[in-house]
Amino acid sequence: MSNDPLVVFTPSGKRGRFPVGTPVLTAARQLGVDLDSVCGGRGICSKCQITPGYGEFSKHGVTVREDALSEWNAVEARYDEKRGLKPGRRLGCQAQIMGDVLIDVPPESQVHKQVVRKAASARVIEMDPATRLYFVEVDEPDMHEPTGDFERLARALREQWEIPEIAVDLSLLAKLQPVLRKGKFQVTVALHKGHRDTVARVLEIWPGLHESGLFGLAIDLGSTTIAAHLTDLETGEVKASSGIMNPQIRFGEDLMSRVSYAMMNPGGDREMTAAVRDAINTLAGEIAGEAGIDAGLIVETVFVCNPVMHHLLLGIDPVELGQAPFALATSGSLTLEARQLDLAAINPRARVYILPCIAGHVGADCAAVALSEEPGKSEDLALIVDVGTNAEILLGDKTRVLACSSPTGPAFEGAQISSGQRAAPGAIEAIRIDPVTKEPRFRVIGCDKWSDEDGFDEEVGAGGITGICGSGIIEAVAELRMAGLLDEGGLIGSAEATGTARMQAEGRTHAYLVHDGTEHGGPRITVTQGDIRAIQLAKSALYAGARLLMDERGVDKVDRVVLAGAFGAHISPLHAMVLGMIPDVPLDKVTSAGNAAGTGARIALCNVAARAEIERVVGQITKVETAIEPKFQEHFVAANAIPHKTDPFPELRKIVSLPSPSFNTHGEGDGEGGRRRRRRG
Amino acid sequence: MSNDPLVVFTPSGKRGRFPVGTPVLTAARQLGVDLDSVCGGRGICSKCQITPGYGEFSKHGVTVREDALSEWNAVEARYDEKRGLKPGRRLGCQAQIMGDVLIDVPPESQVHKQVVRKAASARVIEMDPATRLYFVEVDEPDMHEPTGDFERLARALREQWEIPEIAVDLSLLAKLQPVLRKGKFQVTVALHKGHRDTVARVLEIWPGLHESGLFGLAIDLGSTTIAAHLTDLETGEVKASSGIMNPQIRFGEDLMSRVSYAMMNPGGDREMTAAVRDAINTLAGEIAGEAGIDAGLIVETVFVCNPVMHHLLLGIDPVELGQAPFALATSGSLTLEARQLDLAAINPRARVYILPCIAGHVGADCAAVALSEEPGKSEDLALIVDVGTNAEILLGDKTRVLACSSPTGPAFEGAQISSGQRAAPGAIEAIRIDPVTKEPRFRVIGCDKWSDEDGFDEEVGAGGITGICGSGIIEAVAELRMAGLLDEGGLIGSAEATGTARMQAEGRTHAYLVHDGTEHGGPRITVTQGDIRAIQLAKSALYAGARLLMDERGVDKVDRVVLAGAFGAHISPLHAMVLGMIPDVPLDKVTSAGNAAGTGARIALCNVAARAEIERVVGQITKVETAIEPKFQEHFVAANAIPHKTDPFPELRKIVSLPSPSFNTHGEGDGEGGRRRRRRG
Repeated sequence: MSNDPLVVFTPSGKRGRFPVGTPVLTAARQLGVDLDSVCGGRGICSKCQITPGYGEFSKHGVTVREDALSEWNAVEARYDEKRGLKPGRRLGCQAQIMGDVLIDVPPESQVHKQVVRKAASARVIEMDPATRLYFVEVDEPDMHEPTGDFERLARALREQWEIPEIAVDLSLLAKLQPVLRKGKFQVTVALHKGHRDTVARVLEIWPGLHESGLFGLAIDLGSTTIAAHLTDLETGEVKASSGIMNPQIRFGEDLMSRVSYAMMNPGGDREMTAAVRDAINTLAGEIAGEAGIDAGLIVETVFVCNPVMHHLLLGIDPVELGQAPFALATSGSLTLEARQLDLAAINPRARVYILPCIAGHVGADCAAVALSEEPGKSEDLALIVDVGTNAEILLGDKTRVLACSSPTGPAFEGAQISSGQRAAPGAIEAIRIDPVTKEPRFRVIGCDKWSDEDGFDEEVGAGGITGICGSGIIEAVAELRMAGLLDEGGLIGSAEATGTARMQAEGRTHAYLVHDGTEHGGPRITVTQGDIRAIQLAKSALYAGARLLMDERGVDKVDRVVLAGAFGAHISPLHAMVLGMIPDVPLDKVTSAGNAAGTGARIALCNVAARAEIERVVGQITKVETAIEPKFQEHFVAANAIPHKTDPFPELRKIVSLPSPSFNTHGEGDGEGGRRRRRRG
Repeated sequence: MSNDPLVVFTPSGKRGRFPVGTPVLTAARQLGVDLDSVCGGRGICSKCQITPGYGEFSKHGVTVREDALSEWNAVEARYDEKRGLKPGRRLGCQAQIMGDVLIDVPPESQVHKQVVRKAASARVIEMDPATRLYFVEVDEPDMHEPTGDFERLARALREQWEIPEIAVDLSLLAKLQPVLRKGKFQVTVALHKGHRDTVARVLEIWPGLHESGLFGLAIDLGSTTIAAHLTDLETGEVKASSGIMNPQIRFGEDLMSRVSYAMMNPGGDREMTAAVRDAINTLAGEIAGEAGIDAGLIVETVFVCNPVMHHLLLGIDPVELGQAPFALATSGSLTLEARQLDLAAINPRARVYILPCIAGHVGADCAAVALSEEPGKSEDLALIVDVGTNAEILLGDKTRVLACSSPTGPAFEGAQISSGQRAAPGAIEAIRIDPVTKEPRFRVIGCDKWSDEDGFDEEVGAGGITGICGSGIIEAVAELRMAGLLDEGGLIGSAEATGTARMQAEGRTHAYLVHDGTEHGGPRITVTQGDIRAIQLAKSALYAGARLLMDERGVDKVDRVVLAGAFGAHISPLHAMVLGMIPDVPLDKVTSAGNAAGTGARIALCNVAARAEIERVVGQITKVETAIEPKFQEHFVAANAIPHKTDPFPELRKIVSLPSPSFNTHGEGDGEGGRRRRRRG
């Protein structure tokens, strides 16, 4: 045996001796080397390409002669002629080991290939999808041994791929016989095996070798938009990304108004369920069209969403989520069939995985953030905030993770703001106020220039400035505070008190004029006292939620802050901290995770083990319900001041000095928090 | 411990000592005594009723004092007042053991009660259904521990009933929250656990204690009729039985013509699938109405059917069953959801079990016959014949079971017979021909009198005699043979040769006039030479199939013959043997099993272990395909004679002497079998 040739695989470093004539694929399998094959070594799928190295490799202790592999054979020649084989490549199932050899497995030949995520973090997604392709040769029917075609397919998979048991849907059973005969009893099947399944399920079958791939959709189902990433389940590549408005908006702008709609209108929940399912079908069809693939090749879908969207997607009346104790119908993960959700645009047998919910207000979207950001693996204590209508907050490190949601309301998204609007072209997204002149300059979405730069007016046109979006209003409030136009209590000063005519009286309060487009038929954009109060309520809720988790954890500071969510990507860390939205940390410790929920969905789509992992993690998360914690109110009131009534924010004070005016002439704005509305949605 | 009171249960004889104060139900559970309980010992379901015995029971070595059980308590009193408890009965969950006691568990308190089958055989069905009721108290939602309602239901079932894991359909998840709240978090669930399931599935949920029972349908889906038995899944009682014509008849009278319809008409298979599913829904609705139950309480359905019906029910094009090698799409058993078969009339989550098929022409109906008649447990060698358009034949004993189907064609059902008709009022079902006078007398369906009895004419009226059904034509041919009017080769004699004017010339052949109703506008009913030939083809195929199995088994006689099928119940054993339909056995060794396939369906419905059993048995049956066995043709030709050309039929000859005329004047009827059509259907 020790005279058998030595085979060393890279990059794994796995090695072993094999008899002369052993195909490289066989050696790889016996050593557990990750070398792909759909056709099972029949020389037709080309997935098992390898690159032999020749010469002396002292690091591996192997010298490879030119004849270390068998000669290029007819199968390889035919494949090369038809499809082209890269120089130096061989087919692992055809090339036989003749002498000591070093074999490199290129990334595209690995099943568990690693896909670099686009997000700032350098983490990778390891490909380990639940659904894979298998090519099999099925025995033809034999009257002497009258088993069904399905049973012979099952036997072929058992014998050729060691898959012990398969199941099949009726709709597939109906097409099994014609496909087997069309493929002359050679077929490719897409087999799904979820992390909790004991039996693999046939999702699709094609005659002969199927070469058009398999795809999945990672869907972030938000209350406002539905975003989908169409992903290649073999390579992990995102083939197309697309979004669509959530048509449920016509039933209610925010989550609570949709819950109310369901409560007030019998069958209202079913209307909203039908609307969102329709939209998902539209989106799936569009995204497949955009990527130029047959939507029937979409065999998996992963959803992340908040609890109300979760219930409405599933066809469950969300009424219980609108009132204490906010009971979910189910909090666990779900694996469903596409047809159960009326997802007719994709493969009817596609499997749908929905991540678990953490609590009545902490949804599968937050679980996806936890999957993407992995607070439970963090060495330092991380606070992760997914900013939306409800803020979902995670706090944790290797020892323990806590979660809560906080009812920020929609102010951060520009709603309930006098000149507020969604983040869309024309919206002011950034603003600076000169601390001396008190004059503003700003940038609007759709234009790269600042408003004081040459050519700005031409580029946007006066009517092109339409309002202020969420990041804009946060910056505006923080800039007003830094410019001494707003006091700690949140009161806007008068023109007299501040010395600028931009301050305009509105009844008993004042408003800061950002932009007057009325001459050109555009809007007059101001930041009013009411806007400040709305932002104070939102940021106090967010901060109070974070503090509650810190209390529960027994700390009064965190090491870093991660802003998640598409909105989080656009928030200026400095302004957020001036506002007191987030706890005080060094500014470089505030990072954006982009659409972490969407990334979590992609991870769960590409890696089946990640599903088991996030279910385990969610089970261990400490849930904190802000609605019943008496300290929440206390933290909320203290957080009403800008940045905070009692917390000193030392890191912030290192980089900015905040003026200390006081515009309180009516006994208002004393930091007692004003009206506090609890909003969910 | 040994001073603890002794408890002896009857009829099981199980015994043990338990501390004073132990409830009888607890003692029963610990000893593994079969004592039912739906509410889990809460004193509300009354399923655990027991009868204590008092006095001395030397057989059991126990003396029971009057105070051996705790006193009648408030729960029992309330139950007795509301519902009435039989004298001497106690509730097992309430009555506590105070001293040595003998406890009888009456049959209705046993879960695994035994149900005596109506069939001639004295076998019983042991109740062990896949679906059962469980009453549970679910924890209310708690914001400090935010699990979903489903997860708390699962926990309650785990803690209160030791059910490790449950699954639930989306449609049930949608009603979970309102039902839990309506029942104040006390609910009854119907849990299904199939023989291959690792997880129990919630099929239905009711607020509080559900007391209206659970039901199942055992459906024998035949090509002509669909018969259903509505069965109480707790008691096994058949609440109603009903039948409906299979509407697929409009696409083709027999199976092969339906397969042809599917081949000739694109979408024809889908039309037939829709038609049969509609009919099943109609039947289910009717039978539930007849029994006065809510069809939503039907939570299980078992189907038995031939392979073509099987595929059409499942929505699979049966085209492959119409041509060699007669490949089934699937031969294994199937467990499906009612909605997958569009069975909207019953509970949408009802589980459907379909027995395995044995081979391309030996269907789930034959498997059901094997389950009911258990040839594999027979001490002597039994031949079981399910007579229909295709005869399905089983031969076996404890050592081995063989099966085949034989293409008898529809002649046995009265089709392709000149005066043939289905078994319906007006059909001649029995006939006797006087060997001396050659005059017939007969009985028709719907009238108890023979035609030569007083009052017969009045009772049926002349127009009331409409034709001859299957059993009638078999008797007619056998009687003609015994009366010397038909020779061994199957030729009908002329009036001259036989000396009776009942013989009427028809072209070159003759026909026997059974009844002339033309004076009264009724039909003229004859047995023609063509009818004889059709019956010869059918009976030769049946006999040849049986002989093929005997060859395979290496025997030339069997110990007994069982005639299965509704038709089998009406065949006269003597006439069947004169005809040579079945092998020669003593007449008292020919029995009827009634609708054995339907009985098999009922067994599989009531006893989940029987499903595993029949799957095992079917896997071990030796399948013989008559279409490819060269000896089949040889046996077929030899069986053309009446009763047989070469087999001596000694048992038959002991009780009848058959005349030996020969009417062969044209070289016809020489026993060479004539045209043989292979029919399937």
